[in-house]
Amino acid sequence: MSEHAESTSRKLTELAKRRGYFFQSSDAYGGVGGFYTFGPQGAALKGNLEDAWHDRFSVQEGNLEIDAPTIMPEPVFESSGHLETFDDMLVECPECGESHRADHVVEDNTDYEDAEGLPIPDVEEIIAEYELVCPSCGAGLAGQAVDDFNLMFATSIGPGDSQPGYLRPETAQGIFVEFPRLKEYARNTLPFGVTQIGRAYRNEISPRRSIIRTREFTQAELEQFVDPEGDGPDLSGVENVQVRLYPATEQQADNGDLRETTIGEAVADGTIADPWIAYFLGIAQEWYESVGVDPDRFRFRQHLAGERSHYASDCWDAEALIDGSEESDDSEQRKSAEPSSGYWIEIAGFAHRGDYDLSKHAAGSGERFTVFRQYDEPQTVERATVDPDMSYLGPQFGGGAGTVVDALQALAASNREAFDGDTVEIDLEGETHEIPVEKTGFAVEEETIAGEHVTPHVIEPSFGVDRLLYTVLHHAYAEDEVDGEDRTYLELEPEVAPTFVGVFPLQSDDDLEETAREVAKAVRAAGLSVTYDDSGNIGRRYRRQDEVGTPFCVTVDYESLDDGAVTVRERDSTAQKRLPIDSLAETLSALRAGDVAFEELES
Amino acid sequence: MSEHAESTSRKLTELAKRRGYFFQSSDAYGGVGGFYTFGPQGAALKGNLEDAWHDRFSVQEGNLEIDAPTIMPEPVFESSGHLETFDDMLVECPECGESHRADHVVEDNTDYEDAEGLPIPDVEEIIAEYELVCPSCGAGLAGQAVDDFNLMFATSIGPGDSQPGYLRPETAQGIFVEFPRLKEYARNTLPFGVTQIGRAYRNEISPRRSIIRTREFTQAELEQFVDPEGDGPDLSGVENVQVRLYPATEQQADNGDLRETTIGEAVADGTIADPWIAYFLGIAQEWYESVGVDPDRFRFRQHLAGERSHYASDCWDAEALIDGSEESDDSEQRKSAEPSSGYWIEIAGFAHRGDYDLSKHAAGSGERFTVFRQYDEPQTVERATVDPDMSYLGPQFGGGAGTVVDALQALAASNREAFDGDTVEIDLEGETHEIPVEKTGFAVEEETIAGEHVTPHVIEPSFGVDRLLYTVLHHAYAEDEVDGEDRTYLELEPEVAPTFVGVFPLQSDDDLEETAREVAKAVRAAGLSVTYDDSGNIGRRYRRQDEVGTPFCVTVDYESLDDGAVTVRERDSTAQKRLPIDSLAETLSALRAGDVAFEELES
Repeated sequence: MSEHAESTSRKLTELAKRRGYFFQSSDAYGGVGGFYTFGPQGAALKGNLEDAWHDRFSVQEGNLEIDAPTIMPEPVFESSGHLETFDDMLVECPECGESHRADHVVEDNTDYEDAEGLPIPDVEEIIAEYELVCPSCGAGLAGQAVDDFNLMFATSIGPGDSQPGYLRPETAQGIFVEFPRLKEYARNTLPFGVTQIGRAYRNEISPRRSIIRTREFTQAELEQFVDPEGDGPDLSGVENVQVRLYPATEQQADNGDLRETTIGEAVADGTIADPWIAYFLGIAQEWYESVGVDPDRFRFRQHLAGERSHYASDCWDAEALIDGSEESDDSEQRKSAEPSSGYWIEIAGFAHRGDYDLSKHAAGSGERFTVFRQYDEPQTVERATVDPDMSYLGPQFGGGAGTVVDALQALAASNREAFDGDTVEIDLEGETHEIPVEKTGFAVEEETIAGEHVTPHVIEPSFGVDRLLYTVLHHAYAEDEVDGEDRTYLELEPEVAPTFVGVFPLQSDDDLEETAREVAKAVRAAGLSVTYDDSGNIGRRYRRQDEVGTPFCVTVDYESLDDGAVTVRERDSTAQKRLPIDSLAETLSALRAGDVAFEELES
Repeated sequence: MSEHAESTSRKLTELAKRRGYFFQSSDAYGGVGGFYTFGPQGAALKGNLEDAWHDRFSVQEGNLEIDAPTIMPEPVFESSGHLETFDDMLVECPECGESHRADHVVEDNTDYEDAEGLPIPDVEEIIAEYELVCPSCGAGLAGQAVDDFNLMFATSIGPGDSQPGYLRPETAQGIFVEFPRLKEYARNTLPFGVTQIGRAYRNEISPRRSIIRTREFTQAELEQFVDPEGDGPDLSGVENVQVRLYPATEQQADNGDLRETTIGEAVADGTIADPWIAYFLGIAQEWYESVGVDPDRFRFRQHLAGERSHYASDCWDAEALIDGSEESDDSEQRKSAEPSSGYWIEIAGFAHRGDYDLSKHAAGSGERFTVFRQYDEPQTVERATVDPDMSYLGPQFGGGAGTVVDALQALAASNREAFDGDTVEIDLEGETHEIPVEKTGFAVEEETIAGEHVTPHVIEPSFGVDRLLYTVLHHAYAEDEVDGEDRTYLELEPEVAPTFVGVFPLQSDDDLEETAREVAKAVRAAGLSVTYDDSGNIGRRYRRQDEVGTPFCVTVDYESLDDGAVTVRERDSTAQKRLPIDSLAETLSALRAGDVAFEELES
């Protein structure tokens, strides 16, 4: 396939449009960059991927799922930091008026590797120094101002503009802000996880072609809330999972390479520092394979220290290798270990976010974003207190008496020994005063504490659904030759294929059509997704189903009316077998569940 | 229940928040009107309702499903008419600054019934004349300007404000604008249907409490594209469906009543004029019952002529009766046939929209929004044409020759007989000119036409998912007394209940817990949704599951360890039976599928 690599993306995009996987939206009105519509095949594939994620990361993990609004009020994003820092650098061409990401212009035309991290004046200087030009029209950009551009879509809630709102840049905030209620549903017990699948929005300056970098997309996110001092997860189920890791050290080495290892080994040798991250990488590896991501074109890449958010202690991306370069995202291609064979795209991130999110929302809202951690046994602690004699302090210090009380309280808490003598010394506006200890009401009390309020840490596996769909289609794309003719087909996993079986009458004939419709109905009743097709010759119908990735096709012919059997054809091998209609739904269900292989079936 | 009617809404809202059905979003930040988050139970119920809709209205009908962006560019809404007319009337209080719907203020305090239909100056006059006051603070509103307020959330796409975008006010536009591509997926054959489930947005001036009128909500829409001259649907499957209709004539009568009838009769006697509308009402009636809408609190109400959009030839709403009045939507209560027992809310609309949507987008985009209808046999038509002799017309008419050619062409098309004589007369700027027919090149040609381009008509069943969820919870809400204690439970249908079965160990005990976890795992593996709960006493656990509507609970006790059987309890009757663990998953599956009733099972 590598010699055709250049055009795989183009062919796939054409197939996606023609067969109803995805296409740019509002085409009749000229389209708008960064917005795509999933047609019937794409909506089905996307729905199947979401269902599979929901089952694995929510149901099987026993997590809570929520469904929150996409519009959120401004204070949420003041707290989360998005209002201030969710920016890209914008430079506008003075000639054609086109907007570009200034850091991309710099990175694409100089040796600078991480222009995103540079201050704006430096970027302006580099643009001038290297005499960089507009990628669209070639006009010089030197002297143009570079501005921060916030990537959130802004709107107004209600009449007037008194209540600004934003389309959420990630589904996660819908979970974080509701933590005080969600912990109740989890019965105040850590750890617990909350998931959400939904739309998120980024007003990209220049969205890239196809569905890799869009302005509206679907995320599947899991926020795992854990006790910072609690036990890690049970790793026994994932320790033998094989993974290909690309740690930061390898990326920085001259001849860095992927490391083939297991989750268990990677934790043991410290490659993956956090056990929760390791747990989710293990689950994700197996899940990605189950929905059709090719393990040979998949890796986990650790973020370099400079890439990570300041609060994240560790972060790994799941990355998929995409053939060709036509639609390459340059900033990601630069990080590639195998640049010649295609480009890597990020399809998920796994970040240890510490207590950043919950602490920020606690500070911003004034509410409590904690869980009460009960001690195994109540603890008894000594607490030093004062109860000053105001009839002594009042006359002595006048208006300053209150300040003296505060000072005595602080001193009792910080330095109990100061009260050991007959008098205690306090500083007040630079002057030292001696106060008789008997006038301070100093006492040491015993207090029983049942537990403490803990701000949980968050481990966040965050999946991009659109990019996953793109990857699955890319990795499923195949070409071969059948009966001397070129064939294009999608090797989609049965679990996620939009249609599991196509049912055809061999020819336009009332009896054949009636039987075929009955077969379709019976197979559908078994819960399998069916496409009935009676138009065009049989070869064209096979070709159509091959192109959308339907694993099996069933043809009803004249013989079927006599022998009660039909021809079943497998997509990948194009092998055909004659199977009885009576048990067809059962056989197909077994094939889908993987209980039997097609080649084992007896005609 | 009617004596408790007043408080059912309040109790349900409290239960919804406490048990995780739904609650106002961003509560930590004080909340924002009109935005709700579905908690774990609500998200599951909503997902089940969406799946059930998808199965019935998309899969079983053989329709195409798509998944389009929620942000769409301005030209789409210029064409659809939303930019100009999707308004409510806004009046702001001069004292407290609160915004109100002016038409609601008028309707709630005068005898005017349809203030929404009045011109703004009239509304301002009525407010002054009746000395109407601010519903929030009581200040006078006379003299305040009433303004049109567009209900779309506006935003900007990309940097700058050169490309306005809007959050779609209905999912339908995402289907209509892609018609030119969708018809290809339907192989250019009418009728075909396209469905979409997704978010829609309306920037309500004053959102009503709870999830009945929110600013962000979920719609499930079906656009059925039909040939205006084509056959109607096959009604044989729905003709015997019993429905309660509330036609326009009954609403206008003094003692109007619901009409109990069947779909077949209603079509025969003309109550439902359009067979497609009748078809969808029949399907909807059965589907609503299957997901738990009480048929005794359900009806189809026809729009009055004044309510309908000007382009809609007929429209019916599905309406559900909600107990109480606390959260009543006044505008809808006014239309009620039984105002004393609660209030009706619209939960779906079924509109015949003619060719309005496709024609508007064709005109706005300049693209073709038609399907080519092939004639059974090619038709031969005669066409009159002219091919004037310019060497004659030029000298004769100078610069006016072009106009003469146009006039001759128009005349040939409209009045072929005018060319029967030696000369033909045409009018040119008020003067009549005679032109020899032989100089006009007049001829009649035969042309063969294979078919014609037809703009399909649209029948649109549009379902509100949030309002349906609210209705299902309301109709499921029940109270009784069990063992002398008050009990609240939700009689949810097994198909949509968030959890199908709760599994409990009787007490905190390693052996019981291990067995209970195994039971939970086995039942989950059979595809049933399971909640495992080992906290609190058994009574509290039953109560929790009753309150969220779990149909069955399974308890593992010490006897279970010996006899391999468990206690299964039915939610509604609280009856208990002892059933073997071996066949438990199978038995529960049969109960869910309705293949067996609980009371038929042998202990």
